[in-house]
Amino acid sequence: MTNQAFQDSYPDDLSHCYGCGRNNPHGLQLKSYWDGDETVAQFQPRAEHTALPGFVYGGLIASLIDCHGTGSASAAAYRAENREPGSLPALRFVTANLNVDFMKPTPISDVLELRGTIREIKEKKVVVDITLSSGDQVCAKGTVIAVKMPDTMSPG
Amino acid sequence: MTNQAFQDSYPDDLSHCYGCGRNNPHGLQLKSYWDGDETVAQFQPRAEHTALPGFVYGGLIASLIDCHGTGSASAAAYRAENREPGSLPALRFVTANLNVDFMKPTPISDVLELRGTIREIKEKKVVVDITLSSGDQVCAKGTVIAVKMPDTMSPG
Repeated sequence: MTNQAFQDSYPDDLSHCYGCGRNNPHGLQLKSYWDGDETVAQFQPRAEHTALPGFVYGGLIASLIDCHGTGSASAAAYRAENREPGSLPALRFVTANLNVDFMKPTPISDVLELRGTIREIKEKKVVVDITLSSGDQVCAKGTVIAVKMPDTMSPG
Repeated sequence: MTNQAFQDSYPDDLSHCYGCGRNNPHGLQLKSYWDGDETVAQFQPRAEHTALPGFVYGGLIASLIDCHGTGSASAAAYRAENREPGSLPALRFVTANLNVDFMKPTPISDVLELRGTIREIKEKKVVVDITLSSGDQVCAKGTVIAVKMPDTMSPG
């Protein structure tokens, strides 16, 4: 696995996301890495992330898939351009479409693992397929269609 | 609008969801109601729910659509059976598929409104189409395919 999380290479003013921003102390602070040609992230759900007792609520699963997807899109775009992650101008993506299949109830007790594969990459659009597993069980599958961040969202 | 939120008619042991459970003090506590044949919910994002400064992160939008969808599915199932919401046996639904189109950056400052319409209703499956708006702008559209809660998730 690579050493630096994708999200930790984002510029400071793009690092406030509740799902994955290092500058959001209340948030989930998801960290995603390359593992060969796949992207991987792990997350330990908190007790309050419950749906029904013992299981994770769907919104957390959707949030993790979403942020792992946009992070993977950004990393894939840097890699496609042979650029150092985080080098300027920043390549940051937002989600145009998120689709999640909830396949099994997802236990809240154990670490969840997300694994992403880059299905399609164009200059302004990256499609990422993601599985979310608990142990050896795939509990959810998702696809993120990520697009280059519009200028209207840029803080800079 | 009806007076009691769908989620407030759930049995106590089914009311721990981070997105919509009244028994989850850390959660979002989304409340959904009938407005004629549509379902409606409002939510004021918190400061930490940011994506980039000024805008809501996608995971919150997905979470709200998901919980409004399953709540709407439950309410529609009770209505279809001419039963009082919350009467036993409980009709509780979970999400099989969540699909969200993020159409515009969603401002964090204002109250968000979700409106649901029941596209399809069968005994074990309800499909709900949902818009999420800020003011008069629809910022996201989603569809929730909700299925009757499997016995393996039931705490009872």
